[in-house]
Amino acid sequence: MRRSIATVSLSGTLEEKLQAAAAAGFDGVEIFENDLVAAPVPPREVRAMAADLGLGIDLYQPFRDFEGVDDAQLERNLRRAEAKFELMLELGTDTMLVCSNASEAAIGDDARAAAQLHRLAEAASPYGVRIAYEALAWGRHVDDYRHSWRLAAEADHPSLGVCLDSFHILSKRDDPSGIRDIPGEKIFFLQLADAPYMAMDLLQWSRHYRCFPGQGGFDLTAFTRNVLEAGYTGPLSLEVFNDVFRASDPHRTAADALRSLSVLEDALGRERAAERVAEGPGADGARPRVTLTRLPDPPEDAAYAFVEVAAQEAGADSVRAVLAALGFDHTSDHRSKPVQLWSRGDARVLLSATDPRLGHTWDGDAAVTALGVEVADPDRAAQRADLLLAPTLPRRRDPAESRISAVAAPDGTAVFFCPSSQQGRGWLADFAAAAVRDRNEGAGVPVTAIDHVGLFQPFDHFDEASLFYRSVLGLTPDASLEVAAPDGLVRSRALHSHDSGLRIALNVSVLGRGTRADAAGGAQHIAFACDDVFAAAEAMRAGGVAPLPIPDNYYDDLAARTDLAPAVRERMRENGILYDRAGTGEFFHFYTPMLGNRLFFEVVQRVGGYTGYGAANAPIRMAAHRAERTR
Amino acid sequence: MRRSIATVSLSGTLEEKLQAAAAAGFDGVEIFENDLVAAPVPPREVRAMAADLGLGIDLYQPFRDFEGVDDAQLERNLRRAEAKFELMLELGTDTMLVCSNASEAAIGDDARAAAQLHRLAEAASPYGVRIAYEALAWGRHVDDYRHSWRLAAEADHPSLGVCLDSFHILSKRDDPSGIRDIPGEKIFFLQLADAPYMAMDLLQWSRHYRCFPGQGGFDLTAFTRNVLEAGYTGPLSLEVFNDVFRASDPHRTAADALRSLSVLEDALGRERAAERVAEGPGADGARPRVTLTRLPDPPEDAAYAFVEVAAQEAGADSVRAVLAALGFDHTSDHRSKPVQLWSRGDARVLLSATDPRLGHTWDGDAAVTALGVEVADPDRAAQRADLLLAPTLPRRRDPAESRISAVAAPDGTAVFFCPSSQQGRGWLADFAAAAVRDRNEGAGVPVTAIDHVGLFQPFDHFDEASLFYRSVLGLTPDASLEVAAPDGLVRSRALHSHDSGLRIALNVSVLGRGTRADAAGGAQHIAFACDDVFAAAEAMRAGGVAPLPIPDNYYDDLAARTDLAPAVRERMRENGILYDRAGTGEFFHFYTPMLGNRLFFEVVQRVGGYTGYGAANAPIRMAAHRAERTR
Repeated sequence: MRRSIATVSLSGTLEEKLQAAAAAGFDGVEIFENDLVAAPVPPREVRAMAADLGLGIDLYQPFRDFEGVDDAQLERNLRRAEAKFELMLELGTDTMLVCSNASEAAIGDDARAAAQLHRLAEAASPYGVRIAYEALAWGRHVDDYRHSWRLAAEADHPSLGVCLDSFHILSKRDDPSGIRDIPGEKIFFLQLADAPYMAMDLLQWSRHYRCFPGQGGFDLTAFTRNVLEAGYTGPLSLEVFNDVFRASDPHRTAADALRSLSVLEDALGRERAAERVAEGPGADGARPRVTLTRLPDPPEDAAYAFVEVAAQEAGADSVRAVLAALGFDHTSDHRSKPVQLWSRGDARVLLSATDPRLGHTWDGDAAVTALGVEVADPDRAAQRADLLLAPTLPRRRDPAESRISAVAAPDGTAVFFCPSSQQGRGWLADFAAAAVRDRNEGAGVPVTAIDHVGLFQPFDHFDEASLFYRSVLGLTPDASLEVAAPDGLVRSRALHSHDSGLRIALNVSVLGRGTRADAAGGAQHIAFACDDVFAAAEAMRAGGVAPLPIPDNYYDDLAARTDLAPAVRERMRENGILYDRAGTGEFFHFYTPMLGNRLFFEVVQRVGGYTGYGAANAPIRMAAHRAERTR
Repeated sequence: MRRSIATVSLSGTLEEKLQAAAAAGFDGVEIFENDLVAAPVPPREVRAMAADLGLGIDLYQPFRDFEGVDDAQLERNLRRAEAKFELMLELGTDTMLVCSNASEAAIGDDARAAAQLHRLAEAASPYGVRIAYEALAWGRHVDDYRHSWRLAAEADHPSLGVCLDSFHILSKRDDPSGIRDIPGEKIFFLQLADAPYMAMDLLQWSRHYRCFPGQGGFDLTAFTRNVLEAGYTGPLSLEVFNDVFRASDPHRTAADALRSLSVLEDALGRERAAERVAEGPGADGARPRVTLTRLPDPPEDAAYAFVEVAAQEAGADSVRAVLAALGFDHTSDHRSKPVQLWSRGDARVLLSATDPRLGHTWDGDAAVTALGVEVADPDRAAQRADLLLAPTLPRRRDPAESRISAVAAPDGTAVFFCPSSQQGRGWLADFAAAAVRDRNEGAGVPVTAIDHVGLFQPFDHFDEASLFYRSVLGLTPDASLEVAAPDGLVRSRALHSHDSGLRIALNVSVLGRGTRADAAGGAQHIAFACDDVFAAAEAMRAGGVAPLPIPDNYYDDLAARTDLAPAVRERMRENGILYDRAGTGEFFHFYTPMLGNRLFFEVVQRVGGYTGYGAANAPIRMAAHRAERTR
């Protein structure tokens, strides 16, 4: 399907917005009046500029509150509309969006409104312009798509149809299935926006918190399916008012936007294919069909192959000390690169002296630089990532080494697609037994695997990251949470693969702060799973690394609010073990001290099907890491 | 009255919060459980630490959802409460806040809830603890202060009373006058928070957007008056959940907080004095009276004496060129400092080579560094500012020069209190006729005065600035507006003196960006008033400075949406004059190019009582300045 984006979704001048939309691969744009009015370029040149970039101008949105007015106002509105039709001729766009009247003064008289829309369509017709009438969720009298369609039907003019905007329908939890009753050729335009569900004024919610499909809480696949079933064949267009996107690099935003439409089209295409199988051959003929671009299947059971940590010499020593204390062995070294493999059970950490993305020596604090992800078909995963505009990372390798594709996540973390262990050792073959093995003699810390990785995100790219992992790796996002860190609020959203072999927790400062300056709020971490958190903490301590101390006040509160046995609480207190509960599930976890300013480890034990991340304890952990730094 | 602040209102660790509250001059704090639980200090030491700082611990808030539960849960809750009473003994606080149950599971049975509150009070009594029961605005069954008081009265226990929180009452636009019906000794605690009126979920609004009294939209004077009339004699305590305060310097926030209470007490004291006059002598005896601290009267008709611009040599040349083109004369020079006075009508601009706040040579782009404000009584204004914790600026001066006090506004701008011109020339006596006068030969640009100054604010201090100007200069704030700048949203709030002789527009990036990097959104400006904007623009152009060019698209749109005569529109187009209308008022204005990266001038003409600032045109201006920079 044709793909468009409203200029209001992107940051910058009109020219910058057009360039960004074209670079991402959009076919067209909607122009919001303010963007044109502020531009130092006449409409004719805007048209030429767009054409040069391969973009059509699919919609123009010049004013509000047209219909349901008194007769004198109607004449003024028509005069204004005529001026805009002239402008649209120069702009080369044939569809004008008219939103339902939202002013207090609007007259609630359907016959009047329909007659006035007829007048407008009649005036538009000589210019070849079509009027797409849209019900705003906060329209004074018309706030529902059935009502806008009823008025358009009553006005009965070939130049008049409706525009459907997912926000105005789904924000009110309205049922989109009635869209199928609208003749497809009368749906002149389709605007798509997702949004997190929020309990707030519709207008404010709409103007600040919209996001791209797949980033919020709306079911846009079901919504769009209804529109396609009505026979709509026009563009999928993104009209997304978002405070962050307004202020971010428009090229990044446009790529993120296009990715969201690729995922949506793919989901619709999968449904159609499944339907076709169900209906048997020949079922297609009845309805108009747009072509839906498909993507390769997403990885189904993605799991951690490894996590790579880059560190300078001194930093690497402290990482090694903690890994050793956690029972990890330094099992092997990369054949051609300064990378050590440390492993324990199925938990594998690569310790590297270089930045895997740039190839040069790592010069910062120890940090997570790459996630190795086991997938059933690495080539298919890489191909899918490429179609989703994930930036491919160059891999320099010796001819004898395994070929592993990697892409950059929005925060710059490299994501490697590794063959799953069933398919042979794969990337592990690139490692040779370590010359000097740091073999752990300890009775064994029961670390079994990587439970999750926590990555602090750059403020501008939090929603982008969520969609990236969701679409590229096929992960399922949990709901967003907020955590009150000592220095401000942190928003957190976790994603997991189907069987939870891959869990990623994305965190971001609500005010866009604290990625490096505030290490307590802004750090990354690797959480290891174990079967006995007490044994793990005690073994780590015996190995020379004390768990992060947690204040006695925490345990006193735990005594007041839980029925944990005193002996258990006492063992927790001694080892800085924190506790959370949800339903029948329990979560025990402890932390290492900070390893530099950006990284720490966590060891977790999940009991009884607990699926969270102990978010309630995050402020305690943050305060404890903060206290550690100022000691 | 005693003044307290909840630890949740401030950023940092518990220790940092206590230090900040004490430094600002608070008498006590409320401790939020999370702050204590995360602290590595036992309750007894927290008490000692607070005592050393001169702070009492006035309230502890340990848990939610106590009452309206089944019997088994009640026993668990009581067990938990006992543990907290023990803790409160160590903490040395005697009042526990209990909020009305907000959980879905709460049982809506008043008799049960009252009986359970009685049990709690009975349990608290041996510890000397009082229970302050508060109706949350989103309580499941108890969401109204009358209801919480009814339950407390029914429970009838000396250790049980109510806590009143202005947010929970005023956010619902509830009438606070019923508070007078509660016996004062049963109001155990008073929490104050202001907030901007917002159409959103009460809980989200409450947790993120509260602010200090005088920063939002609530009438906290009337609210508190009702509480005092009931006979309440406890502390005024600020419980303010605010995303920005959580992440800002706690010392700044605490001073801002204390300022808000000083203004509130002063307003209450003024009412009482007025009442006393009305009632005649002897009327006081009837009710208990708390002592209300008063401030000196605020300036009533503050007006601009001057605006000071600091610039390096090259920057100063361009400022001078524009001032000259606007018809300003370089009339005199400061007797002892490198400061020139440029004036036209009542508009006076000081052009300085030094930073008036630091005394050293100015080394940045040209910028507004000081506002000279004419007030009837400069000493009184300075004394008031001092009591409002405005940082006093040191003035180095020759003995012969006039003594002018100055304070620093939250963004660092110096505010000078100048005697009004009726009281003699005052500060002007420090200036001698310029050795080399740049006398303007032009027929005269009709600039008459300074209309307003626009100051881009640091993100953390926007609400603080609004309260600062409101309280220190006695200005009245307008409603906040949002402007879609090319690189993101800008929030704007203007304040004006009684007769509008002083108008200040405060702007801030909604995402906390663009103070310097984005000059278009983040710049400062001085707007000059005139009686003929066309003559002004043409004279400036004749003087060699072309007004900021505004796109033709703007004028085409103006033609479509207004009935301005074509000849007028044409003259506007030629001179980059923008237009706004509100009611019968009209606003014509144009801009100079940027003078460096931070400063520009504006010339405005107000017609028919227009009181705004042309905010609708701000995105056009920003895009035009942005285009100028990239040309």
